[in-house]
Amino acid sequence: METHILLISCADEKGLISKISTSIFAFNLNIIVMREFVDPETDSFFMRCELFGEPDKPALVADLKQKLPKQARITLNQKQKKNLVVLATKEYHCLSDLLTRFHFDEINANILAVISNHEFLKPYVEKFEVPFHFISHEGKSKETFENQLTEQVTSYSPDFMVLAKFMRILSPQFVSLFENKIINIHHSFLPAFVGANPYKQAFQRGVKLIGATAHFVNNNLDEGPIISQKVLNVDHTFAVKTMVQAGHEVERAVLVEALNLVLEDRVFVTGNKTIVFA
Amino acid sequence: METHILLISCADEKGLISKISTSIFAFNLNIIVMREFVDPETDSFFMRCELFGEPDKPALVADLKQKLPKQARITLNQKQKKNLVVLATKEYHCLSDLLTRFHFDEINANILAVISNHEFLKPYVEKFEVPFHFISHEGKSKETFENQLTEQVTSYSPDFMVLAKFMRILSPQFVSLFENKIINIHHSFLPAFVGANPYKQAFQRGVKLIGATAHFVNNNLDEGPIISQKVLNVDHTFAVKTMVQAGHEVERAVLVEALNLVLEDRVFVTGNKTIVFA
Amino acid sequence: METHILLISCADEKGLISKISTSIFAFNLNIIVMREFVDPETDSFFMRCELFGEPDKPALVADLKQKLPKQARITLNQKQKKNLVVLATKEYHCLSDLLTRFHFDEINANILAVISNHEFLKPYVEKFEVPFHFISHEGKSKETFENQLTEQVTSYSPDFMVLAKFMRILSPQFVSLFENKIINIHHSFLPAFVGANPYKQAFQRGVKLIGATAHFVNNNLDEGPIISQKVLNVDHTFAVKTMVQAGHEVERAVLVEALNLVLEDRVFVTGNKTIVFA
Amino acid sequence: METHILLISCADEKGLISKISTSIFAFNLNIIVMREFVDPETDSFFMRCELFGEPDKPALVADLKQKLPKQARITLNQKQKKNLVVLATKEYHCLSDLLTRFHFDEINANILAVISNHEFLKPYVEKFEVPFHFISHEGKSKETFENQLTEQVTSYSPDFMVLAKFMRILSPQFVSLFENKIINIHHSFLPAFVGANPYKQAFQRGVKLIGATAHFVNNNLDEGPIISQKVLNVDHTFAVKTMVQAGHEVERAVLVEALNLVLEDRVFVTGNKTIVFA
Repeated sequence: METHILLISCADEKGLISKISTSIFAFNLNIIVMREFVDPETDSFFMRCELFGEPDKPALVADLKQKLPKQARITLNQKQKKNLVVLATKEYHCLSDLLTRFHFDEINANILAVISNHEFLKPYVEKFEVPFHFISHEGKSKETFENQLTEQVTSYSPDFMVLAKFMRILSPQFVSLFENKIINIHHSFLPAFVGANPYKQAFQRGVKLIGATAHFVNNNLDEGPIISQKVLNVDHTFAVKTMVQAGHEVERAVLVEALNLVLEDRVFVTGNKTIVFA
Repeated sequence: METHILLISCADEKGLISKISTSIFAFNLNIIVMREFVDPETDSFFMRCELFGEPDKPALVADLKQKLPKQARITLNQKQKKNLVVLATKEYHCLSDLLTRFHFDEINANILAVISNHEFLKPYVEKFEVPFHFISHEGKSKETFENQLTEQVTSYSPDFMVLAKFMRILSPQFVSLFENKIINIHHSFLPAFVGANPYKQAFQRGVKLIGATAHFVNNNLDEGPIISQKVLNVDHTFAVKTMVQAGHEVERAVLVEALNLVLEDRVFVTGNKTIVFA
Repeated sequence: METHILLISCADEKGLISKISTSIFAFNLNIIVMREFVDPETDSFFMRCELFGEPDKPALVADLKQKLPKQARITLNQKQKKNLVVLATKEYHCLSDLLTRFHFDEINANILAVISNHEFLKPYVEKFEVPFHFISHEGKSKETFENQLTEQVTSYSPDFMVLAKFMRILSPQFVSLFENKIINIHHSFLPAFVGANPYKQAFQRGVKLIGATAHFVNNNLDEGPIISQKVLNVDHTFAVKTMVQAGHEVERAVLVEALNLVLEDRVFVTGNKTIVFA
Repeated sequence: METHILLISCADEKGLISKISTSIFAFNLNIIVMREFVDPETDSFFMRCELFGEPDKPALVADLKQKLPKQARITLNQKQKKNLVVLATKEYHCLSDLLTRFHFDEINANILAVISNHEFLKPYVEKFEVPFHFISHEGKSKETFENQLTEQVTSYSPDFMVLAKFMRILSPQFVSLFENKIINIHHSFLPAFVGANPYKQAFQRGVKLIGATAHFVNNNLDEGPIISQKVLNVDHTFAVKTMVQAGHEVERAVLVEALNLVLEDRVFVTGNKTIVFA
């Protein structure tokens, strides 16, 4: 017997939990944990269930579809590892954390490949027997570069793409191919210090906390739905360089936190926000 | 229409959520939020629901009682202010925080009275038009003292008693009268530094974090079910005295956090632990 | 014998610590604690010393002035309570915290008066036997309002003015009268969400942390030197209203932290930043 | 020109800072940063200075020795990488973090070798071209095992030995060979849950925070001077196993924090405590 994850989002109406849980019970499944939320702004209902048993998946989904409001989104999948492709540039600190966890089977994912626009990280990645693809952005148009990226990424059919400090801005065309499938770390406590050199901006402003934000990428740079944010204390003794170093710790931590949530299907995207059943 | 809180704990079995939510739906109530937990150690089920509508309370409870496992504990109450009696000695910092929040209606409770074994806090308490009762522990047996306490406390029929730095050890006899109804703050990160002078113990051990713990009181001093814990950083520059002062901040914060959870019926006690639907 | 605080800022040069500490030693004073910082951006030296003994203050300052670079700023004062005037509007949570600490002598300051543009907080303030002055902003020009404020504030000759949720924007003219003497709490993690309704902005952006910032006020609203910042976790269940309530806790905490630093002369302002010898 | 670290500890007396800084100035060195502390319990003085210039080291130390109280401990060394030997058993999470930082030159140390009483981590360690020594504890006396350890460790003459989850209890004989040179991570917020299975103890007690402690090892297990402590929130949904997993994050974080402090000579040991000039 396996654990399955049931995800539902639909318009809210009275009796939804009763309908859903009764359907689950009728299919002889046990609810291990159920979390739900009604968004009062959009009058929408969101639910995540972990189910134990041997579901007749098509029949259960069909039964739910019939009972729930029209246009309900229902997914039912076995709890299993997701497949990731990681994009990086030259910074190693987020990538190394993912590769190490993957190597020791501590993350609920397979890292299928690493793609970078520099060759610097190749020897490190190959220590972990993970394919490394070098796709330079130089001497070609952004469109060509992104077409090459798309081809390489799609060849792996990943569930999610992780930008582990990928320092190229992606076009709306590219992003739209992977809607809510690209996870980025912005090295600031968004929405403070959007754009380039956030640590330099933070230094110049004299803030006493710096942060990092893991978010889904959408068409507006640094403005996608936020999954997780963390901060750490800094003071007047921090130069830009030491802020960058300190920031690595919080970038690493926020990425793995966000990724663990996404990999366990705990994150719904609604509009420009997330609902996180932590 | 009002919000009600439904609390259920019972032996676990398949279909509980279906039975409960279907019963709620049949009574024409809307589930605002539902949280549940199955404790794998005891195979027990715990649920907290906020319901919107006009329930026929006795009928709903009877219906649930009939459908749920025997010895299920079911309570259904309107979401409303709880009544508190606060016991203090001489330290003001937790008491003042409660009185100020009560005064400005920021806490979901009525503070019916303050009882102290010293007169020091009387003028302060009376600023807030809250009755202050001085019951000295001096020149009398512990039994007499506790009988006088019991009489005074029970005259107010409070839902909970808060030990806001009440520096007398209560006997098992007294505690048993108010099972899971007494909330204490221990000024350490339990189970470190149980007993007297925890800040002195912390200083001597050279710890780098100090903490505070809000817990229900049971017969074993400092060993009741923990509701909430918080810590703060200290370093070698902290003397015992400055640890005590710094500790006030975290004691205050942990008490109000725990109390808000208890006042909103978010805390179940099971054995010597709590389940907190935060 | 008393403790004195010596504060020095000047251009950096080799041998400053030697000159200063030798001068202190020659005056037969004991250094309890010394902290210094050289700002590499401006090549400036900052020092805070706590001295124990009975200094001939004018002679020590004269001796230091002669030895240190020209235009060195030197202050030497007995460690003692500072005088505060608090400005508030209708929100009580920061003000009540200050008044309670003042009442129980837990803050290193005298609160000489509270000034508000509303009468709402009057009964509460007067419980603490602190003068309350109501100065309405209605039916008069900003200039007239600020002149009345200035008159009332200066009648108390405070060391610092605390804006404990004072919801009026002060003009550059007013601010310039009290340079680096006005401490404000902005209810966001600056520089995110400057301006009005930061919690609403935070809600709309779907952030996972909200914060508060204590800063000195300068001519550009919300852009003065930051003293202290704190954050707390929020999630999708927080409405604007619950964010505001949760924010009260962090606003209170950040104000008292910043104020304690300022009251102990631990904060230097340099340009638009602070140096904090915590 | 190089940066040097000057460390001094001695009996306290008036004028120490003047004497030391004047001596430094006479040797034409610039103080980049100076931190000092007087421990009121032992009347001892501790100082750490970063000095810039080209010191005549023996002459400066001799000059200081002559001016400071007898038995003053003075060290003056160029700021440079320390040498580490890491002991591990089977858990990878602390070791991998150290190796990755070493590989990318992010930690101020050389990892000379890894020694383990199991072979499990060998392939991983060798990816980083770091020598791996397998010394089994099985089938031999503790004395023999520790003699073999000692021989292997001392062959590298490391500055510090890091127990990165080394799950064997070391004898007082072994520890005394490396006084204040062995850094351990205990997987609890000491002094809570000393001894074996701290996460199981934490689970059974129902705590709401778990922690980790980095400390120097002395003769009493888990009782050496604490360098750093960190905690994270847990709740009723955490089983022992998930506490262990969550604990890995905080163990990793606390070790690297403590190690960075030690590697920059920021930690003095005095009695059973540390003074940390962070």
